Amino acid sequence: MFKFFGLLLGLVMTAAPAGAQSPTADPALIEDLVAANRILYDQSVVDGFGHVSVRHDKNPERFLLARSMAPGLVTAADIMEFDRDSNAIDPKGRAVYLERFIHSEIYKAHPEVKAVVHSHSPAVIPFGVTSVTLRPVFHLSSFLAGGAPVFEIREAGGSATDMLIRTPELGAALARTLGAAPVALMRGLQEAVFRAIYTEVNARLEAEALRLGQGQVVFLNDEEAAKATATNAGVLVRAWDLWKTRALATAR
Amino acid sequence: MFKFFGLLLGLVMTAAPAGAQSPTADPALIEDLVAANRILYDQSVVDGFGHVSVRHDKNPERFLLARSMAPGLVTAADIMEFDRDSNAIDPKGRAVYLERFIHSEIYKAHPEVKAVVHSHSPAVIPFGVTSVTLRPVFHLSSFLAGGAPVFEIREAGGSATDMLIRTPELGAALARTLGAAPVALMRGLQEAVFRAIYTEVNARLEAEALRLGQGQVVFLNDEEAAKATATNAGVLVRAWDLWKTRALATAR
Amino acid sequence: MFKFFGLLLGLVMTAAPAGAQSPTADPALIEDLVAANRILYDQSVVDGFGHVSVRHDKNPERFLLARSMAPGLVTAADIMEFDRDSNAIDPKGRAVYLERFIHSEIYKAHPEVKAVVHSHSPAVIPFGVTSVTLRPVFHLSSFLAGGAPVFEIREAGGSATDMLIRTPELGAALARTLGAAPVALMRGLQEAVFRAIYTEVNARLEAEALRLGQGQVVFLNDEEAAKATATNAGVLVRAWDLWKTRALATAR
Amino acid sequence: MFKFFGLLLGLVMTAAPAGAQSPTADPALIEDLVAANRILYDQSVVDGFGHVSVRHDKNPERFLLARSMAPGLVTAADIMEFDRDSNAIDPKGRAVYLERFIHSEIYKAHPEVKAVVHSHSPAVIPFGVTSVTLRPVFHLSSFLAGGAPVFEIREAGGSATDMLIRTPELGAALARTLGAAPVALMRGLQEAVFRAIYTEVNARLEAEALRLGQGQVVFLNDEEAAKATATNAGVLVRAWDLWKTRALATAR
Repeated sequence: MFKFFGLLLGLVMTAAPAGAQSPTADPALIEDLVAANRILYDQSVVDGFGHVSVRHDKNPERFLLARSMAPGLVTAADIMEFDRDSNAIDPKGRAVYLERFIHSEIYKAHPEVKAVVHSHSPAVIPFGVTSVTLRPVFHLSSFLAGGAPVFEIREAGGSATDMLIRTPELGAALARTLGAAPVALMRGLQEAVFRAIYTEVNARLEAEALRLGQGQVVFLNDEEAAKATATNAGVLVRAWDLWKTRALATAR
Repeated sequence: MFKFFGLLLGLVMTAAPAGAQSPTADPALIEDLVAANRILYDQSVVDGFGHVSVRHDKNPERFLLARSMAPGLVTAADIMEFDRDSNAIDPKGRAVYLERFIHSEIYKAHPEVKAVVHSHSPAVIPFGVTSVTLRPVFHLSSFLAGGAPVFEIREAGGSATDMLIRTPELGAALARTLGAAPVALMRGLQEAVFRAIYTEVNARLEAEALRLGQGQVVFLNDEEAAKATATNAGVLVRAWDLWKTRALATAR
Repeated sequence: MFKFFGLLLGLVMTAAPAGAQSPTADPALIEDLVAANRILYDQSVVDGFGHVSVRHDKNPERFLLARSMAPGLVTAADIMEFDRDSNAIDPKGRAVYLERFIHSEIYKAHPEVKAVVHSHSPAVIPFGVTSVTLRPVFHLSSFLAGGAPVFEIREAGGSATDMLIRTPELGAALARTLGAAPVALMRGLQEAVFRAIYTEVNARLEAEALRLGQGQVVFLNDEEAAKATATNAGVLVRAWDLWKTRALATAR
Repeated sequence: MFKFFGLLLGLVMTAAPAGAQSPTADPALIEDLVAANRILYDQSVVDGFGHVSVRHDKNPERFLLARSMAPGLVTAADIMEFDRDSNAIDPKGRAVYLERFIHSEIYKAHPEVKAVVHSHSPAVIPFGVTSVTLRPVFHLSSFLAGGAPVFEIREAGGSATDMLIRTPELGAALARTLGAAPVALMRGLQEAVFRAIYTEVNARLEAEALRLGQGQVVFLNDEEAAKATATNAGVLVRAWDLWKTRALATAR
């Protein structure tokens, strides 16, 4: 079966010694991570399952991730710190996500990656279980140029897993699949969220266009996609502001 | 026509003598049953019709079910107790569901079943009136491995019923159909709700994948499904917490 | 082009002399008509356009209908009384619906009809512009047995109308089309709303089932449909209560 | 790739000398423009991106447009004035939309145009990337008679743009494409919003009807469309009132 990735990255802006207790993360980063959880739920990218992490701003060997819970209910008190092997720094008895190795192994293999979203968004799943490729039908999903890589867990874990990335080895295999995908310089968490949302939007549009056009669809070419991606980086805060306002206005 | 079942079960954890007035059910069980009604409505599994019951925790010969009303409006005061033949213990003039025999006959035939959901969820219905089988496209619907059984009321009741399971005999025929389905050990009501919701989600995903892939879709194999089902049992409370928060936050 | 009808009726329970100023309608009927407007909007059967009327309970030559406005905003003060030719009894300068002749001509031609819904509900429209027939896929839409009649305005008004039933003659032609449809005894306004909503639901389900089953779908047979329709009449208040609670809880 | 236009127009009702500082726009026009932004978001025609402008009521050489932000969050304080070349009159450091040339070049080339909506509404996009034409399936989208023109940016800007109308030249090419579309006399901003919304509705209905009817669909003919369009102009305020009430009732 499948997992999609390759969406969700950025540049580490600072470097700090690893292993020791990290300095406290920037409260604005925590706030953004909480907003990212709530936005991804409000925009139907995640439901009760799925997660989003961000690399620690003071210590690139660490990352921040919620305790095991529904993203739509996350608050700042639920954010935990993990080391490069997905050990919780200060667990306080809190349950952790079984698939946290997705995050740790991607951060380990891809130093430029700053944020990771893991979801099972509904319009994307059909592209994972068929041979149809996700490709950009409009400029807001231009980052899909070249097609999204699909990870087949059966190749890495055999035909009798529980479908979860529950070991460092499976996480590393996934990170290698991601390595083949086009990785661009991004602004980090906000762009990861932007890409996760527009991947879902593009999947709906592409499926519908393929049906309407009986397989004949005009996609963005590579040059258009590269230029549109650069442009989008400058305006994505416009969507982030809207999504954040919406997501935090609801109690749940 | 059709009815889907096979979703909705669990282990009876206590045994008590039947027939007499039951001791009061655990208030937490009543609360969960109210939440189950509201969640199933909020998640679009039921509309004005459909119902959910739970086996009585103090008396396995009895079960709890709302009076005849829309699930989305149920409160604790609406929960009634029924005996093994679907007689209301203390009706107080309240109307009862015509199809309560679905519940009583399943509890009678399947001692391990702890909860039953009956719905007409929209994405599932098309699988009931065509020859296409519901099968799991992702790990959260792994319980569908082997395919959901379809009950044809015309075989049990002839071609001129009103489509309802309004007699013990029809209920018993339905329970026999359910008997052929894979029945696993579960935690009860919360897992029944989980399965009802992800049956609907899977139906949407499978229909879309079949279209996109023009009939070629990769499903979970039986080993993957079994392992994923075991894993899901440990994390479903995460989704329950979200659904309950959402469903009880709305007035309706 | 098309118009769907045949859904939306009932028995006149009293008879009164026509022509004179009617006694005041039952406030409960006005309240139900307001609720019907709001429910049809809340359930996405009407948008800014569409209307619902009810025959006057004290004078069967008259009917009640909102002034020209979006159904979702209707309050009791917006309800007007019309005579058998669609003249407003006490207009007070209020604008009236151009298509009110749909209502007056149906009431005139069908004395047993007690309520009329006119909508352009989204899943139904594709059945109006193609040769596919609406038929019941489950018991809640059993009233569709025999298929919904389609009115072709080009046959009655030529190929250059503005598509509206804006004259008594077009209304009468429409009422004749309705006359061929199966008309059963119903409870009136609440059942008209029930049928309008489940016509939309059935249209979604049927379109999806036809796709999934590649044209092979099992529909209710006529006996099943007749029995289910009789049963539904006894339980529709359950859905009405839910819809009314929802629709009146929102400000718009 | 594509851009849709041709929807979004009206009559300039006054003429005033251009170039100098304009008299203050009518506060009711500003209020309508704010409502238009919020309505287009609430009705899912725009998301975080897209924009709507109106020609200045006191100076036809100028137009009003929000600063660069999500339409769903726009308030009166966000409305800016632009000249015929898309220069902001009083920017106060506010960011402006990259694609404001869509607006200025259409106003320049089409003196009768009074309002412009630019969106990427989801059901419409598949018609832009396939060879299927948008045509009216019901009277509310009658303005689509003749088919909506599709602008191919590759013809005007080559195959390596970032897909945006970011120069006056691209805007002018777009305005020429619009010139071939049927342009009718309208009431301005409210009708532009009406058309943007019913273009999206029609796209959903047409795609579904084409599937259901396997390509055989009855569309409005040109006479029906012309008459329906004239009728709609008289009733669109009914929908506007509903949309405005809804859109302004939500905080976001």
